Amino acid sequence: MKLSRLGEFGLIEKIRRIAPGGPGVLLGIGDDAAWVKAKTSSFLITSDLLIERVHFDFKWTSPYALGYKSLAVNLSDIAAMGGTPAYLILSVGIPIEFDAQVVEEFYRGVRSLALRSGVALVGGDTSASESFFVSVALVGHAPHRPIGRNGGKAGDDVYVTGNLGDSALALSLLRHRPRETKRRASSYLLSRHHFPTARVKAGTLLAREKLAKAMIDVSDGLLQDLGHLCKASNIGAVVWEDSLPLSRAYRSVAGREGTRFALTGGEDYELLFTARRRDRSRLEKLQHRLDVPITRIGRCVSSREGITVWNTEGEPRSIGVKGYNHFRFTS
Amino acid sequence: MKLSRLGEFGLIEKIRRIAPGGPGVLLGIGDDAAWVKAKTSSFLITSDLLIERVHFDFKWTSPYALGYKSLAVNLSDIAAMGGTPAYLILSVGIPIEFDAQVVEEFYRGVRSLALRSGVALVGGDTSASESFFVSVALVGHAPHRPIGRNGGKAGDDVYVTGNLGDSALALSLLRHRPRETKRRASSYLLSRHHFPTARVKAGTLLAREKLAKAMIDVSDGLLQDLGHLCKASNIGAVVWEDSLPLSRAYRSVAGREGTRFALTGGEDYELLFTARRRDRSRLEKLQHRLDVPITRIGRCVSSREGITVWNTEGEPRSIGVKGYNHFRFTS
Repeated sequence: MKLSRLGEFGLIEKIRRIAPGGPGVLLGIGDDAAWVKAKTSSFLITSDLLIERVHFDFKWTSPYALGYKSLAVNLSDIAAMGGTPAYLILSVGIPIEFDAQVVEEFYRGVRSLALRSGVALVGGDTSASESFFVSVALVGHAPHRPIGRNGGKAGDDVYVTGNLGDSALALSLLRHRPRETKRRASSYLLSRHHFPTARVKAGTLLAREKLAKAMIDVSDGLLQDLGHLCKASNIGAVVWEDSLPLSRAYRSVAGREGTRFALTGGEDYELLFTARRRDRSRLEKLQHRLDVPITRIGRCVSSREGITVWNTEGEPRSIGVKGYNHFRFTS
Repeated sequence: MKLSRLGEFGLIEKIRRIAPGGPGVLLGIGDDAAWVKAKTSSFLITSDLLIERVHFDFKWTSPYALGYKSLAVNLSDIAAMGGTPAYLILSVGIPIEFDAQVVEEFYRGVRSLALRSGVALVGGDTSASESFFVSVALVGHAPHRPIGRNGGKAGDDVYVTGNLGDSALALSLLRHRPRETKRRASSYLLSRHHFPTARVKAGTLLAREKLAKAMIDVSDGLLQDLGHLCKASNIGAVVWEDSLPLSRAYRSVAGREGTRFALTGGEDYELLFTARRRDRSRLEKLQHRLDVPITRIGRCVSSREGITVWNTEGEPRSIGVKGYNHFRFTS
């Protein structure tokens, strides 16, 4: 049924039925505001916009995957502070010619990840708009001391969770080599692009054990996010190209692109953090409690050395890091 | 400077400089998430979308007024639960051909009301988009027991704060009689439309004194919001047309439109609430502690009687209440 026929209140009723509940919700969707419990004496709030033709394209993203990802990218931000995601506020602008089923599929994608993450949908708004967009705010319970971007020191190690580059490589395949997406390796990469795994457990453990000193999630690309962390910590960093964690699928598909997507691709939603050298063995042990590898990829240096990537021959490689600029986008 | 030249990071830097701070912010804009204090063991969250050509039009709304109002409408929702507004998350989609000054003016409008309300801007996102839109989430400290919409009982009185209809009448003037907006009375009405006053102090006092039993803010129009309250409380209501609080300006400008805008206009952002009959004198006294009149406009009846408006001749008046449907909007 077209949204123009279903109407706003009909749509809201559908959403309410799909909306995942969760612990701590005292009063959910349907009043002037949601009323929720604070588990700790402080909390974390993060937010994101996802706009059609700027951040995603329905040509290669299903509404279900978009819903899943809208939550995942925000889970990742809370994880990067060491927090525990709890309450989701989700607003959606929808072109009126859309079918209500598209919107339902979107919310089913949200629901699927929310239930798994213990996150309750507690509010939001819906409206007609010219293009489809999603505005997410996510509240999380804070650890005793959240991990900001500013705790890195020269001499620290640099680590990253999981693998890098899969998501950006998948997007490149979708855009430029669509026929190749049928290959088995590619379908793994696609799943990493559409259904990224936020490293919530790793983030909370790294904060609780006081192992991560500065932390950020890799959304804009390793080098750019490392840049943000270095700027906030007033340090520089060296990254060893041959220690970058690459999936088997990445290695088999990337070809002569080499590590480009891993270094600058973006949308990995892995955690990038610094840790003291003395904590290497503790981090080694922590890895066994997690479902995700942690790889040491470099070290922190003084700020005047900037950020350098050392290539496999042990030579410094010059890399132009371009920030993804949402105001220079042309579709 | 055009946004396309300034770029996303340049814009964010400008916003950071304008962003109002406030109490309780442990870590503000600039990390993966904001870190804020919970003053009470539970909190309130509300959110709203404001989309160009659906909810507002730059033809008659300045960017400054839009910023002010974006916060005001959310303050009003927190007020309607009896809460204290605290942390603001504000995301903005902006067409790239916009001038950065428009965006700055918008944030100045937000800042002006935020500083006055003790609200800190703690996060948000910015992006290019086809039309201008604002997505707001506001977190407030909860009272001991927030006032939902569902506490009304047959026999209760119905009250409203302030005056009704000014905002909708102003919008109608802007649309249909633009030359009349030069009159003094009209300029008062326009200020009510562009700079609505959220009744935060009234809301918190009504909750603290346990006087309001069910409460909602009037955003869609008195009758529609009364309908929401009645539905949630499973009651009906009678409204006396001649007791509706109308401003002097409204009376002088409305003419033969009579009470239409007061009954169905919307965007009043006054508080509509029910109270027990035995609390009439306590409410009378409370009024003196507030800067806003509280008017008894009707009473709650059983749900099967529905909602009736009694006109000045003491006869039931039939009023078609049409919900404002954001999916049937045509500009």
